[in-house]
Amino acid sequence: MQAKAVGLTQGLPVSDPNSLQDVTINVNQPRGRDILVAVLATAVNPIDTKQRQGQSPVTTPRILGFDAVAKVLAVGEAVTTIMTDDVVYYAGAVDRPGSDAQYQLVDERLVACAPKTWSPAQSAGLPLTTLTAWEALFEKLPFTAAADANLGQSVLIINGAGGVGSMAIQLAKWAGLQVITTTGKPETTEWVKRLGADIVLDYHQDLGSQLAAAGLQAVDHAILLHSTDQYLPLVTPLVRPLGTIVAVVTNQHPLPMALLKPKSLNFAWEFMFTKANYQLPSMATQGSILAQVAQLADAGVIVPTTKRTLAGINAANLRTAHTIVETGQMLGKIVLTAPFDA
Amino acid sequence: MQAKAVGLTQGLPVSDPNSLQDVTINVNQPRGRDILVAVLATAVNPIDTKQRQGQSPVTTPRILGFDAVAKVLAVGEAVTTIMTDDVVYYAGAVDRPGSDAQYQLVDERLVACAPKTWSPAQSAGLPLTTLTAWEALFEKLPFTAAADANLGQSVLIINGAGGVGSMAIQLAKWAGLQVITTTGKPETTEWVKRLGADIVLDYHQDLGSQLAAAGLQAVDHAILLHSTDQYLPLVTPLVRPLGTIVAVVTNQHPLPMALLKPKSLNFAWEFMFTKANYQLPSMATQGSILAQVAQLADAGVIVPTTKRTLAGINAANLRTAHTIVETGQMLGKIVLTAPFDA
Repeated sequence: MQAKAVGLTQGLPVSDPNSLQDVTINVNQPRGRDILVAVLATAVNPIDTKQRQGQSPVTTPRILGFDAVAKVLAVGEAVTTIMTDDVVYYAGAVDRPGSDAQYQLVDERLVACAPKTWSPAQSAGLPLTTLTAWEALFEKLPFTAAADANLGQSVLIINGAGGVGSMAIQLAKWAGLQVITTTGKPETTEWVKRLGADIVLDYHQDLGSQLAAAGLQAVDHAILLHSTDQYLPLVTPLVRPLGTIVAVVTNQHPLPMALLKPKSLNFAWEFMFTKANYQLPSMATQGSILAQVAQLADAGVIVPTTKRTLAGINAANLRTAHTIVETGQMLGKIVLTAPFDA
Repeated sequence: MQAKAVGLTQGLPVSDPNSLQDVTINVNQPRGRDILVAVLATAVNPIDTKQRQGQSPVTTPRILGFDAVAKVLAVGEAVTTIMTDDVVYYAGAVDRPGSDAQYQLVDERLVACAPKTWSPAQSAGLPLTTLTAWEALFEKLPFTAAADANLGQSVLIINGAGGVGSMAIQLAKWAGLQVITTTGKPETTEWVKRLGADIVLDYHQDLGSQLAAAGLQAVDHAILLHSTDQYLPLVTPLVRPLGTIVAVVTNQHPLPMALLKPKSLNFAWEFMFTKANYQLPSMATQGSILAQVAQLADAGVIVPTTKRTLAGINAANLRTAHTIVETGQMLGKIVLTAPFDA
């Protein structure tokens, strides 16, 4: 079948109208464990802008878009967990056509039913950031994924106001952790406090002395959601011996890892697409994480992080969203909602 | 009380007779959780030579020596696990006078009774390497410390013939792992095979193609016991997604950590002295690890790695041992045995 979509054929600055173009694509019927969906809303993440910028020239337009809420139109013969007419949400995979399209094929293992009480625009802000935050906290760090299961333990989240940070704070609070985070201005400080942060440090000032002033010598573990190059040396002195520093942003230069050795610290990469890219058996954990998060959303334990919605999925709106995300200053998430009015 | 010892007052090349000198020191009676021991044998590790080389000038001689087997002469009032006349073994701590001495004070939490069926020279080769190998396998890597508990899983050990490698191979085999290791010449290959290595790669040749020739695409996890700078980029392509690379040798240059990101790999430092240096509650795990290892030794599950013994603990013999260890080519361990004939 044919579908409207927003695609690109080369890496261009977002100010160029050709950087993202309205196109028409073909979408096959689902086979195996794939489901065919109609996209209702899609969020833009930093990985969208990076993949767009780095796209080498292609003849068939590439369709980006990872986060989505969508209605299931048909399922492959091996699908067991999802049914037609379900409204699902997912972050998808980087090696397949994305959610900046009217219709899309997705592997059922990456998918769960969306929160029942949230709008598509609200739920579309969740998958990629939530999976990253959840895997960082409960797979890369040794915290337990259950309500109040980690009382007495602490986590430092660098850049708490962004997409991943906004979910990491909420999940960490749900799990009973003491949450220390960093912000740079009053409105982001207010936002992270609303999400549950216990201690907010100003990233313009020395982190260690602010932590000490708040009565803490060190934190158990840390999650870096901004420049790994800049923050690894700053955070290493703040983490307790045997602790782990999780990073999500690729370093630009080799890293001074010897700093971590006296305390036998660990360094862990959290890259949400690893499980799908390598077709690991554990890729089904992403569907199950999203199912748990939908329950937390419907129970009111977590609140939406979508901060801005653009009505209409088309190249012009998507270029606007990419422009905003590229500033790196976005609070929470930006979402585009159907219809496709290309 | 007074004790004979081998000390140093500044960092000198081992060829200099003043690099390690026969001295007399004072040793106090034990208080708190300390025990007072008479040293029967002491092994030399790479950290001895590095600490000697880097010693800044001091007036009171510093006593090195970590690994030891010793007889307990007296215990502090808070000691609960060790009794007078026990023969114990331990790796001690870097911030206290060491085991290159007739008498020494050690914290009971770092100590266990030595294997009953092994000589002091055999047991003295165990503690530091065994603790490093055990913590790497069963604390830094997610393997289970029990007989055959990890069947179907694999570990790559870079430099299997050295001190830590010789213990890591044996402990990994005991735990049911498939062990892949690297060597550079026939006698080290023979040695690691005797210890239980399943697949031995020649480190002069490409590791990936040798692994493939042995029928393996990748390993679950890896332990680097030689140049982290050199081996991190070589080993990264060989480790399965979500795996962990443990390193014990301080890097000389910043490391290209971005290589590890696509597979969401983890990097972990194993530095045996962290627990004692920071007086962590977990320092008592070192005594308990050594107690378990003594049982494995007495049961014949592991064999001694001591490959050379020098009779007499004195400056001349210790300089000889440091000279050999500094080559980095030592197979297994070198040990000095009492009496102190300074």
